[in-house]
This record gives sequence, structure tokens and C-alpha cells, in this order.
Amino acid sequence: MELTSKYLADSLGGTLEGDPDVSVNSVARIENGRAGAISFLANPKYEHFIYTCKSSVFLVNKTFVPKEPLKAKAVIRVDDSYKAIADVLGMIEAFRKRHKSANGWCRLHPFSSKIGKGTHVGRMTFIGKRVTIGANCDIYPQVYLGDGVTVGDGTIIYPGVRIYHDCKVGSNCILHSNAVLGADGFGFAPLSDGSYEKIPQTGNVVIEDNVEIGANTTIDRSTMGSTVIHGGVKIDNLCQIAHNVEVGKNTVMAAMTGIAGSTHIGEHCMFGGQSGIVGHISVASGTTLCAASAITGNVKKEGEILMGYPAIDHFTYLRAYARYKANGEKR
Amino acid sequence: MELTSKYLADSLGGTLEGDPDVSVNSVARIENGRAGAISFLANPKYEHFIYTCKSSVFLVNKTFVPKEPLKAKAVIRVDDSYKAIADVLGMIEAFRKRHKSANGWCRLHPFSSKIGKGTHVGRMTFIGKRVTIGANCDIYPQVYLGDGVTVGDGTIIYPGVRIYHDCKVGSNCILHSNAVLGADGFGFAPLSDGSYEKIPQTGNVVIEDNVEIGANTTIDRSTMGSTVIHGGVKIDNLCQIAHNVEVGKNTVMAAMTGIAGSTHIGEHCMFGGQSGIVGHISVASGTTLCAASAITGNVKKEGEILMGYPAIDHFTYLRAYARYKANGEKR
Amino acid sequence: MELTSKYLADSLGGTLEGDPDVSVNSVARIENGRAGAISFLANPKYEHFIYTCKSSVFLVNKTFVPKEPLKAKAVIRVDDSYKAIADVLGMIEAFRKRHKSANGWCRLHPFSSKIGKGTHVGRMTFIGKRVTIGANCDIYPQVYLGDGVTVGDGTIIYPGVRIYHDCKVGSNCILHSNAVLGADGFGFAPLSDGSYEKIPQTGNVVIEDNVEIGANTTIDRSTMGSTVIHGGVKIDNLCQIAHNVEVGKNTVMAAMTGIAGSTHIGEHCMFGGQSGIVGHISVASGTTLCAASAITGNVKKEGEILMGYPAIDHFTYLRAYARYKANGEKR
Repeated sequence: MELTSKYLADSLGGTLEGDPDVSVNSVARIENGRAGAISFLANPKYEHFIYTCKSSVFLVNKTFVPKEPLKAKAVIRVDDSYKAIADVLGMIEAFRKRHKSANGWCRLHPFSSKIGKGTHVGRMTFIGKRVTIGANCDIYPQVYLGDGVTVGDGTIIYPGVRIYHDCKVGSNCILHSNAVLGADGFGFAPLSDGSYEKIPQTGNVVIEDNVEIGANTTIDRSTMGSTVIHGGVKIDNLCQIAHNVEVGKNTVMAAMTGIAGSTHIGEHCMFGGQSGIVGHISVASGTTLCAASAITGNVKKEGEILMGYPAIDHFTYLRAYARYKANGEKR
Repeated sequence: MELTSKYLADSLGGTLEGDPDVSVNSVARIENGRAGAISFLANPKYEHFIYTCKSSVFLVNKTFVPKEPLKAKAVIRVDDSYKAIADVLGMIEAFRKRHKSANGWCRLHPFSSKIGKGTHVGRMTFIGKRVTIGANCDIYPQVYLGDGVTVGDGTIIYPGVRIYHDCKVGSNCILHSNAVLGADGFGFAPLSDGSYEKIPQTGNVVIEDNVEIGANTTIDRSTMGSTVIHGGVKIDNLCQIAHNVEVGKNTVMAAMTGIAGSTHIGEHCMFGGQSGIVGHISVASGTTLCAASAITGNVKKEGEILMGYPAIDHFTYLRAYARYKANGEKR
Repeated sequence: MELTSKYLADSLGGTLEGDPDVSVNSVARIENGRAGAISFLANPKYEHFIYTCKSSVFLVNKTFVPKEPLKAKAVIRVDDSYKAIADVLGMIEAFRKRHKSANGWCRLHPFSSKIGKGTHVGRMTFIGKRVTIGANCDIYPQVYLGDGVTVGDGTIIYPGVRIYHDCKVGSNCILHSNAVLGADGFGFAPLSDGSYEKIPQTGNVVIEDNVEIGANTTIDRSTMGSTVIHGGVKIDNLCQIAHNVEVGKNTVMAAMTGIAGSTHIGEHCMFGGQSGIVGHISVASGTTLCAASAITGNVKKEGEILMGYPAIDHFTYLRAYARYKANGEKR
């Protein structure tokens, strides 16, 4: 899992002579070659070194005609070997950042993806095209980052997280294992024959800074525009945020909470476990929803504590439940 | 991650001379050899080419005695080199289909698994034995397809989907990330000491055509026979379909819906988010179940709209809830 | 994905001459060398063999001065080649156990992790440092076992299971696909500006023997100490066990059950699907909780059958519901 001569030649648009499988992990000056390295000859003044150079691969200009046999296992010919070696350095650097140990590997797009300083990417992680990851992130093994995904600085992404294409994750976020961001929103148009036609979900998911998302939680991409999780939101395990939802700053939701499509949640809300909120409504900031309860209409007043299904004032619910229970106790 | 001389020799039942690690990615005619290719000598009329052939690996008959040293890094000797090269072509073709880029790889069973034309299989995907995938599918990276799985044409399987052995997925389906098909149904027999003995779950899951399954949804394999999702069904994220369930055509269920074991669901039903249906019952076609509600007994009449727990006619539920709430408002 | 000369040299603290990329998969005696093997020279009496030995890599003492050119592609020089070859044998054995076929690989820590006899580890599985896996386990592909994880004998771990660092899984357990053990408990301290500060979750998860855990279920690590699932517990798909919870022996919970933080569940309980239990309470042994119901306070008496929200005696709930429904039927 190192850079092979064939891969380098293809990437540089050069022609390859010799073994396509020889791999290199570093660049060495031609006067100081070594096995496992690639060396380049640009300045004819250095030509005499090439005949004794021990590097595994040489990078030379197309016009170069050797006067003696070359010892390298492979020779790559390019238009401008000096310019090409800069690209090779970039590839090796990108490669190194993704490989803190010699044993592992992840999927690479050395040219189109950018990985910030201090960021570690684990093995068996897939990084698509045009992905940008900030500095000091910890991307664990077995993660999937689709094409065009961006991740800010200092974010931790645990094994098995899947982020579909073009979603954005902010800085200092924590995404726990097997969370899925950006799967298609659940949108279908009924057809006259009783079947359904899929409505394309062309938007994305935007996670702002300081958000934590629990294991196996799902946040769907919007139909158009973005499903947005604002800064400081904390979402527990196994929650569902449907397409086109917006969750306001510092809202907290316990495990198994579900929010249906196109609903707007205010800031500083608290939702108990297994609670739910229907689609296409607005919930005021500071709303508390008790566990196992469900809001079915707009909540306009801030700071209410709601319970039951449909959720009502929690004292009202509990007093009503006391009478309900008393009814049941009568025989 | 290319075919190595050792892998080829083992696969062909041949004997290997030379470097076991040299890898090839193509077949070249012996008069036209090149590094990275394998060439074969069957017809003695071509023997003179072998002494100048630049291919990395030669495939020759066991009886072949070279008159000069061979330049290949490895030589594989087989009973019939002409027949063997056909197998090599098959292996390379199977390999190529699974590898659209030189960087990646997935698990291979070139002989026992079949992948249709136009199907792409992503990196780090595991494909078991005797797997059949149709044409024009898009199998993303990091998917698991157990032994004997079949997938129809045009199906999309997103990263992290796990399909246990012998499950069947139809054509034009979409399976979102981290969905699990075919895990063991939840079946245990109580023992006299208070512990439980696992009941083997020997069936499978059958997903018919045009089905969409959401992220992190689970559909368990049946105890015997099949858990069946009929054509056109749409299942949102984080749903649970237990073992032996059958879901009728074009039924739609929102996120976090759960259906317990051995229940039969009719066609064209609609289930709201966080709804549930107990096991061992039958629900008529056209039933609507409101969100956060649960059906606890057979639904025989078609087209009802049900709400609450146990679910009853939704107007009845809401009128009752109005009185319930009024009770709570009295102090 | 075999042991390379560079990897071996680095692991043995030796110096490498020659090709860093040549790979070996076995040890051969120097009088019986072969391509793909490593041979060592310790006893000078055997020195003459080294000049004809066909092994790919030689392991020699630092003091060894060859009298003729060596044929190996790489030579590793160490202080004590006899001692070093024992380490190589250990590495190859560890490697072999993890690789039942020549095509696959998983992440390796040959020195710090232990894998018992008869255990199979699938491809693309990540095994961290200081991991201990017992005998006769079946660890499927694409699993993640973090640093310090221990697994007992005979346990089956299906594809996509993620076990965070330092969690412990007993013997004869079955963990279904995409289950997550040991993600951070959901603990935050509110700050004066309305945001939340994460409370470090420094404990772990302990799963005792004979436990089965369903697909996509999540069990969080404790804040301190352990989240404990005692022996014989069966947990279905998509369940959530929060941090610091303890679940007593042989308790069974159906799909989508959620247990909030720091709650103590007794033995032999049965929880229906989509049921829930709030945090910081204690539930007596033998409690039955009906589906879609939620316990909101301590349950002190053993053997009760509870229903509703808040859960009450199930006959009481159903009688009350009959009157509730009758209220709704009046117009």
C-alpha cells in the first residue's frame, strides 16, 4: 500500500519503463539515492549521479538519453521532471498524513482531497473526491466520507460513521460510530397505480460547530437546501432527524428521539428519550418534551414542559393520567 | 492488490517457479509481452518469442523445457496452458469489474461470485461466496454481502449495509447506509434454570423489486422460510422488521416504526413515525397508523385510520384525549 | 499484505539492506530456502548454505561478513539472529491466524494483541492494541475492536460491530451487525452561556457470558466504572442502553427498547418492543413491561406486569383505556 511506479506515472501523465509494481515511500536526492525512494534528474550537471543512484524509481525528462544502463527498477519520463517531483512530494505528504503506520491504508485522492495538519485518518476509511478535512481531527478506521464532504478542525469521527456526498461537518464535533449523515430524505410521490415515485433528495446536511451525534443516529439530507443542526446541539444515540429539519443552537435530545420532515426546532430545547415531533411544524425555543411523548402541532410559547401524545402541559397530563388510572382501578 | 503469481498458480493448480509476489493485471500475447502482464506458451511454433518476451509471468505447459533462460520473474507450469489462460482471463475480468481504479480493492471470489455488467463494487466491500449481483448496480464501499446473497439489477447499496448469508434483494432497490438485512430473528426458548436457549434462525430475508430501505433499519431473517418485503415498499430510517414478517406491496412506513415477529401487513398501508405493531397478527390493506401509536390486535377492515395505544379509530382517540386533557385541567 | 522486509527489520530493531518491499510468509531453514520465505544464519557451521539459499530474505548477525554475494532480495542484520527468528515465527503465526486465505487482511498488532486458537478474524476488521480474543471465536469482516478490548471464547461478532476501547465481552456471546458498544454516555454540564460542556466518559462496557445483542443496538460506556450486561441477557435490535446502567441476568428486551442512564434492572425481566425506562431508578426482578410503555419510577415489587405511560398495572391500564375509548365514542 505504497505509491507504485505505475500509479506515479499515471498520476504525472508520464510514460513508464520497467517494473510497474515497484513502490516508493519517499523522495531522495539523486546523489543520495536509496531503495524505496524516487529520485529525479532535472539539471544535466547531476547526470553522472544517476548511473550509481540506488533509488528504486527515477523521474527524468522525456528528452533524457542515458549513456549507461540505469539501475532503477522503473523509470518515469515526463515533460518537466523538476515540476513533477513537486507533485510527487505532495502525493507522498498526503499519503503520509493518512498513514501513520506502515501497515495500514485508506482510500486516497491525493490531488483532490485535503487533510489538515495533525489530522489522523484511520485504516479502511474511504475518502471520496474533493473532501476537505481540517486540522487536528481524528478520523477513525472504517469511516466513509463521500465526495465533497467537508469537516472542520478538531472533529472526532468514530468507526463506521457514513457521511454522504456534499455534507458539511463543523469544528470540534464528535460523531459516534455508525451514525449516518446525509442519507436520502424519505420523500415519495404517489402514482395512480398505487406505487410511489422517489423524489430526488438533492440537498445536504450541515452540522455546525461543537455538535455531538450519538451512535447509530441518522440525519437525512434535505430535498433542496440543507438539513441544519446548529452549533452546540447534542444528539444521543438512535435518533432520527428527517429531511429539511432545522435544530436550533444548544438543543439537546436523548436517545431514540425522532423529528419528522421540515420541522423547525428552536434553541435550548430538551427532548426526552423516545420522544417525537411531527413534520412541518415549529417548536419554540426552550421547549421541554418529556420522554415517550410526541408534539403534534406548533409550539409557540417558549419554555413549556410538554408530555403525552399529543403532548400537552405535563402537569395537566399527569393529573389527567391520575384520573385515568383511577378509572381503571374501579371494577 | 493485483493478481500475484502465487495466487494465479494456486488458483490454476499449477506449480510456481520464481518470485511468488510478482503481480499482473493483464494478459499479453507472447510476441507482444510487457511488464505487468502474463503471457502463455501453448503452440511450440511461438516458442522463440518466449526468450525475448518482457511479460512478468509466463504460463507454460509442465512439459516445456526452455532452451535459454527465461526473463520472466515467475513461471507457472500447468497441464494445459491454453486452457489455463482462459481461466486467467476470467479472473482478470472479474477482478477488473470490481476495481475501477488502481488504488482500491474488495474481497474477491472470482470463481464463485458473479457480478453483472455495468455494476460497480466499491472498495473495502466484502463479497462472500456464491454471491450474484445483477447489472448496473452501485455497491458502495464497506458493504458486506454474505455467502449466497443475490442482488437484482440496478440496485444501489450504500456504505455499511450488511446483508447476512442467503438473503435476496430485488432489482431497482435502494438500501441506505448501515441497514442490516438478515440478522437472526429474536427467538429463544426458556429453560428451567431461567436462562434461554437460542432458537436457530434458518430462513432468510427476501426484498422484492423497487423497495427502499432507510439508514440503520434492521430486517431480521426468519426462523424458517422468509421474512418478505414485497415490491414497492418504502421503509424509512431506524425501522425494525422482525422475523417471519410479511409486508405487502407499496406499504410505506416512517422512521422508527417497529413490526414484531410473524405479523402480516397488507398492501398500501401507511405507518407514522415511532409506530408499532405487535407480533402474530394480521393488518388489513390500506390501514393508516398514526405516529407514536401501536396496533395490538388483528385489523380486519381495510382503510381504517388508527391512533393511540392500543390503536383505535383516530377520531375516537382524539375526542377521548380532549376529555382526558380536560380532566387534567380541573384542579 | 504479507510481512515485508522493512516491517520485519523495523519490528526486530535490525538494519535492512536491499529491497524494503520484498514480502515473506514463512520461515525456511537455510539449507532448504525458497522464494517467499525468510531464512536465518546463526551457526557459522551453516554459512556455506547461505550462498545458494533461495529465500527472499536473510536474517543474519550484525557481525556477519559474507564471503560471496548473497542472493536474497533483502538482508536484515540484528544482534542475535537466533533470538530474532523466534520473534519472526511469532509474527508469522499471529499473521496466519488472522489470515485464513491469501486474499485478505486485517489490521495487525502481532506483538500486543492475542488471538486464541480456532478463532477466525475476517478481512477489513480493525484490531487495536492490547486486544485479547479467546478461542473459537468468529470475528466477521469489517468489525472494529478498539485498544484494550477483550473477548471471551466462542463469541460471534458480525460485520460492522464497533467496540470502543477497553470494553469487555464474555464467552459465547453473539453481537449482531452494526451494534455499537462503548460509545460515550450522553453526559453534559450546562454552562452559563447556555452551551454544554462534555463530561468525560471514562468507564467501559462489560458484557458477561451468553449474551446476545441485536443489530444496530447501542450500549454506552459508563462515566466511571462499567455499564454492565449480566450473563444470559438477550437484547433485540435497535435498543439503547445508556451509561452506568446495569441489566440483571437473563433479562430479555425486544426491539427498540431504551433504558436511560444509571438505571438498575433486575433479573429475568421482559420488556416489550419500543418500551422505555427512565434514568436513575431501580426495576425489580421479574418485571414485565408491555410494548410501547414506559416506566418512570422505581419498581419495588417483583413480578408485576406494567403498561402505559407512566406504566401502571396492565389490567388497570386496559380497563382505564376501555373507558377512555368509550368517552371518545360519545359525540
